[in-house]
Amino acid sequence: MPWVSLVILLALLEYSLFGALVSRARGRFGIKAPAITGNPEFERYFRVQQNTLEHLIILIPSMIIFAWYLSAIGSVVLGLVFVVARGFYAYTYVKEPASRHYPAVISGLVTMILLLGGLVGAVLRLI
Amino acid sequence: MPWVSLVILLALLEYSLFGALVSRARGRFGIKAPAITGNPEFERYFRVQQNTLEHLIILIPSMIIFAWYLSAIGSVVLGLVFVVARGFYAYTYVKEPASRHYPAVISGLVTMILLLGGLVGAVLRLI
Amino acid sequence: MPWVSLVILLALLEYSLFGALVSRARGRFGIKAPAITGNPEFERYFRVQQNTLEHLIILIPSMIIFAWYLSAIGSVVLGLVFVVARGFYAYTYVKEPASRHYPAVISGLVTMILLLGGLVGAVLRLI
Repeated sequence: MPWVSLVILLALLEYSLFGALVSRARGRFGIKAPAITGNPEFERYFRVQQNTLEHLIILIPSMIIFAWYLSAIGSVVLGLVFVVARGFYAYTYVKEPASRHYPAVISGLVTMILLLGGLVGAVLRLI
Repeated sequence: MPWVSLVILLALLEYSLFGALVSRARGRFGIKAPAITGNPEFERYFRVQQNTLEHLIILIPSMIIFAWYLSAIGSVVLGLVFVVARGFYAYTYVKEPASRHYPAVISGLVTMILLLGGLVGAVLRLI
Repeated sequence: MPWVSLVILLALLEYSLFGALVSRARGRFGIKAPAITGNPEFERYFRVQQNTLEHLIILIPSMIIFAWYLSAIGSVVLGLVFVVARGFYAYTYVKEPASRHYPAVISGLVTMILLLGGLVGAVLRLI
């Protein structure tokens, strides 16, 4: 489980970086809190952070359950793919929102594999 | 704990479905990323997903701690009630926001019971 | 671990309170769901809740991993500092957004210490 913990924390570190980029974008594009709209480029940074949060709430419990009931190595590898795909997602989204397609699909797919794999693993344990 | 894991993953699967409905609503109502406003019906789908996320961050740790320190069966049953209530919540919110009242109250109540029950369980373990 | 669980649930209880304040602010400032904008004071309450969520997704796994691999007492103390700082954060943000600076910095710092400390702890376990 230390490897699983490590990858979870790496994903959270990447997410913290996305949060820091939102703070910097607030200053750069003059979007004063509590506003979250008003500049399309600021909104891209904001959506990168929010969309990653929406994935992490699924990813973290799924990685742990997948590691418990199916495969710890599988959980670690899929988690690392998520971290890399999210990096590309952030980069492409900020450059041009439409170009985020493939990184978004890959990180979404990895998240669903972990979720469904954990579900299969938990069911196998029960039957 | 496999039952608790199973219900957590069911709640996350339902949440993934809400996320997929937001993606579909983006296309259907022509809301291009990064925008999250501009069409009231799109905003309903978006708020269903967001509000469920706001509950899951409480639900998941609370279910685990409730199961550890108070009752695993109780955690599983309350978790299932949450999943069902959230289904009704999504259905009613999208149809007519005001009609989401009872499903919202029930899923909020279940979440608070798990949180406060976990708190009681952890305190009982300490004294 | 019961102490760690207790502090996690306290943070979630505080977060639930922020959610309840958003509901009350919806009524008070006449912001009907699904709208999340339209009144700057409502938006402050809303951002307090959202920003706390953005921190909790990091805080909770980090507190657990920090407690496992580095120090349970350290995790409990840092978690309590977070809860107190977030209370001040909410209070200052609602009064005057710019005055949230120090509570925001402190709760952000505590979150990063837990994340990086957990990372160090997990790496030490592996080598």
